[in-house]
Amino acid sequence: MNRKHFYTVASLLAAAAVVFGYQARGRAPKSQKDDKDLAAVRAVIEAQQDAWNRGDIEGFMRGYADEETTTFVSGDTVRRGWQTVLDRYKAAYDSRAKMGTLSFTELEFRPLSPFYVMAVGRWQITREGDAPRGRFTLIFRRTQGGWRIVHDHTSSA
Amino acid sequence: MNRKHFYTVASLLAAAAVVFGYQARGRAPKSQKDDKDLAAVRAVIEAQQDAWNRGDIEGFMRGYADEETTTFVSGDTVRRGWQTVLDRYKAAYDSRAKMGTLSFTELEFRPLSPFYVMAVGRWQITREGDAPRGRFTLIFRRTQGGWRIVHDHTSSA
Repeated sequence: MNRKHFYTVASLLAAAAVVFGYQARGRAPKSQKDDKDLAAVRAVIEAQQDAWNRGDIEGFMRGYADEETTTFVSGDTVRRGWQTVLDRYKAAYDSRAKMGTLSFTELEFRPLSPFYVMAVGRWQITREGDAPRGRFTLIFRRTQGGWRIVHDHTSSA
Repeated sequence: MNRKHFYTVASLLAAAAVVFGYQARGRAPKSQKDDKDLAAVRAVIEAQQDAWNRGDIEGFMRGYADEETTTFVSGDTVRRGWQTVLDRYKAAYDSRAKMGTLSFTELEFRPLSPFYVMAVGRWQITREGDAPRGRFTLIFRRTQGGWRIVHDHTSSA
């Protein structure tokens, strides 16, 4: 095999390793690459929490993919598209007092492919009058601009 | 390149095509393989609906991966493990009358990798006294026994 073929085979082997790695590993230890990806996903979630807690809904929305196919499910409702989700947040939380203090806890991650990660966690808002809380399932996709939420299913207690 | 190297390169190219296909395609048309996978996932969901509607909770549960890592999220609660999910269904629906007639509608699918598919849809139970309804997000994994739910997030209106 000449040098050119060597590099072709080597790069294809790397690609095949990714595919079959995802198929085969089951409960095997996570790779360093996964650790880096999951840290990046966690950082997006933490940045959302921080943006919320300074009253910055647009900053919070930067965690979502700015696409028409981004979906947000809650109760019996599906909302579609980044702008629709932003509008819903602005309508539901139209004052700093309503936003209260958000905390995301009990975060868990499940890598689904080199391009998708599922994150599950608990949300709680502390504010005057009540303390809404529940769980969320987020599907993150690796985009050119970093990991972004393409699907959010949120439920309330 | 001799014949052996040709087959090596050809099989690795196929693997690479899978990886980069998932990365690159975005809104490109779905592959025939996707269509087959999504039909299989849809069949699992329809089998669950049919099992429910003949009062067969164990049959319904065959849609879930029989694993301790299977998760079921609703409200502010996470339940873990196939048996736990079965026990919850049996406790919540302890009579045929409570089970009522289940229908799954508005199904949408998003392939996430060769091994994971997301399914989103609407659920509704018709029964004496009330008509609970809501949405679900299901993460299916390709297993030896076929596509199975490894994560369920269900919300109610």
